[in-house]
Amino acid sequence: MRAFVVDNGTAHLTERQPPQPGDGEALLRVLRAGICNTDLEIIRGYMRFSGVLGHEFVAEVIECPSEPAWVGKRVVGEINVPCGDCDFCHRGIVSQCRNRTTVGIDRHDGAFADYMALTTRCLHVIPEAISDDEAVFVEPLAAALQVTELEHIHPEANVILIGAGKLGILTAQVLALTGANLRVAVRSDRPIPVLEQLGLSWVKLNDLPHKQADVVVECTGNEAGFQSALELVKPRGSIVLKSTYVGNPTVNLTRVVVDEIKLVGSRCGPFDGAIRLLEDKKINVLPLIEACYPLDEAAEAIERAGVPGTLKVLLAV
Amino acid sequence: MRAFVVDNGTAHLTERQPPQPGDGEALLRVLRAGICNTDLEIIRGYMRFSGVLGHEFVAEVIECPSEPAWVGKRVVGEINVPCGDCDFCHRGIVSQCRNRTTVGIDRHDGAFADYMALTTRCLHVIPEAISDDEAVFVEPLAAALQVTELEHIHPEANVILIGAGKLGILTAQVLALTGANLRVAVRSDRPIPVLEQLGLSWVKLNDLPHKQADVVVECTGNEAGFQSALELVKPRGSIVLKSTYVGNPTVNLTRVVVDEIKLVGSRCGPFDGAIRLLEDKKINVLPLIEACYPLDEAAEAIERAGVPGTLKVLLAV
Repeated sequence: MRAFVVDNGTAHLTERQPPQPGDGEALLRVLRAGICNTDLEIIRGYMRFSGVLGHEFVAEVIECPSEPAWVGKRVVGEINVPCGDCDFCHRGIVSQCRNRTTVGIDRHDGAFADYMALTTRCLHVIPEAISDDEAVFVEPLAAALQVTELEHIHPEANVILIGAGKLGILTAQVLALTGANLRVAVRSDRPIPVLEQLGLSWVKLNDLPHKQADVVVECTGNEAGFQSALELVKPRGSIVLKSTYVGNPTVNLTRVVVDEIKLVGSRCGPFDGAIRLLEDKKINVLPLIEACYPLDEAAEAIERAGVPGTLKVLLAV
Repeated sequence: MRAFVVDNGTAHLTERQPPQPGDGEALLRVLRAGICNTDLEIIRGYMRFSGVLGHEFVAEVIECPSEPAWVGKRVVGEINVPCGDCDFCHRGIVSQCRNRTTVGIDRHDGAFADYMALTTRCLHVIPEAISDDEAVFVEPLAAALQVTELEHIHPEANVILIGAGKLGILTAQVLALTGANLRVAVRSDRPIPVLEQLGLSWVKLNDLPHKQADVVVECTGNEAGFQSALELVKPRGSIVLKSTYVGNPTVNLTRVVVDEIKLVGSRCGPFDGAIRLLEDKKINVLPLIEACYPLDEAAEAIERAGVPGTLKVLLAV
């Protein structure tokens, strides 16, 4: 089969044997996959991953020896493959399993390939009403939903989102569901058309007053974005961190103490909620698709995804 | 009157005119004052304060032209003098008033003097059952109580406190009230006798496993303490920051995101609760008193307070 693999600082399309589904696993034929900023960071060395890249996908189950009822189902997959046996698994917080592998990120082959194997515990069936192009967004939409899982956002809250990239715009749509007074802070004009198409209010970052936001959701993953978040949040306010960072920012922890600010990190989220919101058309992901490449052109697709400001680039397998 | 003032990088005892109580203010005769680490930092330049130092005190009201019923009362005083008119004052969060002055810290003379003037809005009467030496601890004990105001600590939580100084040991006593499995992490043997006298469990910091604590309360105010807190907290756990920091630490925000950690800054707390806990003898502050100097020896007292590991140094006025 074809597979786009990362190996020791290289990333390339290659030929591999299709995986054999192990006990409890399904063999999936990948239909679509999405390129995430984490994929770009992994290619640069993040997590020292080696294997098949890709963790956003929709696929069809073509084999499942231990649970044949899965065969023929169209599915998406959670990326955290839990051990089932640690304190977090016992508490039902499987996304924080202490012994997890992570699809396409950490010791588990991913989705940029014709086939992949994944435990059925991670699978969710996709309803008819959700297209393949939409289904690819279940994983990042679930991550966006984790913001509202971990931080209670009131309808009367003043909320600023920084980082109007593909994950940021998904997250903004989730935040809009709360009824909060949400504004997306932009540095350039580029994301404005998509924001307006989606009915999201925007404001130039430099026009925002300091210390006025109840909640700032930080989706840039860079130090400048974090420092802006710390300037914008009001005393007793919250900053929700939605992206991993390159390097370790310096943080004015004295401001955090004196103004009693809360920082909340957030990662993977609930797939069921993401699927329901897509099925009910409460979240519109199609304007976020910038391009779709065949798997044979995965390298070009990844190059395109790395151009600053590019929205979602898909792979059709 | 005598007053210990900070002025342009100097700190010294001097003679001053006693303050005249303004409208709504009481004139207080200071009985006891406590030296806080913040005082030491102010002398080194923090807040660029100039004026009479000191924000932990117990005093007697000797004049109050606008509300004479206060005269003769023994009182402590909140340190945040609010404007009464900003959004935080309107919400009742006066400690975060946007226009506040702060006693002995920011544009308001403090308590290391024979007399001080303070608005009656900041005063709390001290019951007979609380001695002067105990009453001096109301302000830092209230600050310790702010940890449990801002973070819900369950009886079944594993809680680590780092920084067994005077504020840390007060905070540990507050945390012990929750019934949590609390351990105070120590680097040296020095605080162990006081911790044992107070019935607080301790453990050597280096003996603690990483990523196991539900809550870490960070009372060191230094970067090494913060980094330890980040190592000790488990995924989905909380770090409560109780001290301001010298400089801006670098923070592994990617760990905060991936492990969905929460950081919570905390500052001033509820005086009424602190007074009740002292009156009910639920918090024992007397073992924290290391020395008491007359005001005339304020410079020596501050030098003593600056010796690493020193607990509370009081001034008798």
